[in-house]
Amino acid sequence: MSAMVNRLAVVGATGAVGQIVLDEIQRQGLTFEDIRLLASPRSAGKEVEIGGKRIVVQAISPEAFNDVDLVIASTPDDVAAEFVPWAVERGCVVVDESAYYRMQPEVPLVIPEVNPDHVAEHRGIISSPNCSTTQMVVALHPLRKAAGLRRVVVSTYQAVSGAGLAAQQELTEATRQQLEGKLVKPQNFQHNIAFNLIPQIGSHRHQGFTSEEIKMVRETHKIFRDDTIHINATCVRVPVFIGHSESIYCETKEPLELDEVRELFRNAPGVELIDDLGASNYPMPTTCAGRPEVFVGRVRKDLDNPCGISFWCVSDNLRKGAATNAVQIAKLVAEQSAAARS
Amino acid sequence: MSAMVNRLAVVGATGAVGQIVLDEIQRQGLTFEDIRLLASPRSAGKEVEIGGKRIVVQAISPEAFNDVDLVIASTPDDVAAEFVPWAVERGCVVVDESAYYRMQPEVPLVIPEVNPDHVAEHRGIISSPNCSTTQMVVALHPLRKAAGLRRVVVSTYQAVSGAGLAAQQELTEATRQQLEGKLVKPQNFQHNIAFNLIPQIGSHRHQGFTSEEIKMVRETHKIFRDDTIHINATCVRVPVFIGHSESIYCETKEPLELDEVRELFRNAPGVELIDDLGASNYPMPTTCAGRPEVFVGRVRKDLDNPCGISFWCVSDNLRKGAATNAVQIAKLVAEQSAAARS
Repeated sequence: MSAMVNRLAVVGATGAVGQIVLDEIQRQGLTFEDIRLLASPRSAGKEVEIGGKRIVVQAISPEAFNDVDLVIASTPDDVAAEFVPWAVERGCVVVDESAYYRMQPEVPLVIPEVNPDHVAEHRGIISSPNCSTTQMVVALHPLRKAAGLRRVVVSTYQAVSGAGLAAQQELTEATRQQLEGKLVKPQNFQHNIAFNLIPQIGSHRHQGFTSEEIKMVRETHKIFRDDTIHINATCVRVPVFIGHSESIYCETKEPLELDEVRELFRNAPGVELIDDLGASNYPMPTTCAGRPEVFVGRVRKDLDNPCGISFWCVSDNLRKGAATNAVQIAKLVAEQSAAARS
Repeated sequence: MSAMVNRLAVVGATGAVGQIVLDEIQRQGLTFEDIRLLASPRSAGKEVEIGGKRIVVQAISPEAFNDVDLVIASTPDDVAAEFVPWAVERGCVVVDESAYYRMQPEVPLVIPEVNPDHVAEHRGIISSPNCSTTQMVVALHPLRKAAGLRRVVVSTYQAVSGAGLAAQQELTEATRQQLEGKLVKPQNFQHNIAFNLIPQIGSHRHQGFTSEEIKMVRETHKIFRDDTIHINATCVRVPVFIGHSESIYCETKEPLELDEVRELFRNAPGVELIDDLGASNYPMPTTCAGRPEVFVGRVRKDLDNPCGISFWCVSDNLRKGAATNAVQIAKLVAEQSAAARS
């Protein structure tokens, strides 16, 4: 099906994710007549290259969305809260990566491998889930389809790039300083991140859980349209640049054999199975960074529970966790518009 | 009670753990008439300081254990396999930190806060558990005593010092090189550890689980003398120098309120509770390194299961995970011998 847009706008085009959105637009073949790149006033006037053309970044404003059909946006929540209504009022469809609209009942929360049919229900806004949620749900989906899903216990190992470009620079600088015996005052994190772990992502939200942990519960329920799944998440920041990792334990409703589980992962769209412990072959952040798939390895059956399955899941948090998924949604929107026109 | 030994030997005295054994002997007040420091022939002749006295390290040999009463040993498994029988034949009691004897039925596996009574059953060898097991069991013990323990799902974040001094140097060097854009060939790990995670500790052991993961299951069963506890472990190496962290989910047999759980941790011997998410206060490797306690934080009740509890547990893997626990066992042995003599 054709994935052609007349006028596309990319908001947050100069950010860590925005730059990869531009790359994914080309990699996935989302074509357009015209593209507009928008960012904060601070970044306006910068030139950014896409498809060999240099384009001047404009400041976000209501008028910047005039005549735009489709918007892909990667901004902080407060920015999304302000500009998305401007775009929707002007008839744009907005694919938004911020958390701001995700849990609003009329906004579909979409992972194209999992719930592409929810796209059609949009009223101008479609949200892309939290990075930690997306990779987990992509991996759990084939197991749930085959055998139901009763419960998930997940512990994350999240890269610093989830907190933006400045956070990546902070890991570099703090590490360099610590190797010289100096300590750097943290700026993008609650504590020093060099050679350390911070068991807090987001703020205190609910009964001792952080906002990131609660997102993993509620967003998963919304995507699967099933809030009977018991989910217990612990989110931890690790000194890794790119690539979130997750240690996932889940309990299906029906038992699955280990070979069946591996076969389900092998055939699941968007999933790549790398699982040969004897050869020390499994997904790791440094080998998965820059790639669009969700990688799964270390697959094991629980030693006691016939419905229990453990696995290790790694994905580039800037790709499938953000830009890749948003551009996939944008392609679905473009294809559905094309189908409606024809 | 008096914890006085006539002749003490420390085997592996020049290693990462051995050096901390010497520190813990002094910190815990394990006194001795005479001390012998033993190590591989490569380290023999080195001078090591303890209590202001410089002592020349001797090579391990059968005769080196003549007239020794108590041995504290931190060596690789193959070294322990060879020398421990020499010591036992000469009437020594050996507190061994290697994995070699841990699962032998006649060898007690002891954490003094949990099962001190098992010490008395020894026939010359007492084993100290795996570092990841020890901190988890110390933290689970008060919950199990209060409400029983049905199931544990644990994901570890293990520091490189668990693999020895050379591994710590490798993290430093690999990080330095990577900051300069170079890649270092891994020596102590399966893969590059700088800014990376390696979801493998030990070798493939059983149905996709590693030796480290199986140790956490079997050693926990042995210490608690309860193999009905369902344990599912995933062990991961992280680019941290000292301090293992664990994301632990457990299910007790009887429900506990969040306040009760916190109170149990607060009063548990060997445990220190640091748990104020609103103030970003929780245990982290860099703040727990060098301390003998097991630190617990991020305590939460499962959102769905009244018997489910999550928490974050950090401990210095060279201290409570190894040297501290071994010296505590040695003190118990010395006290019991003193009691038997009096």
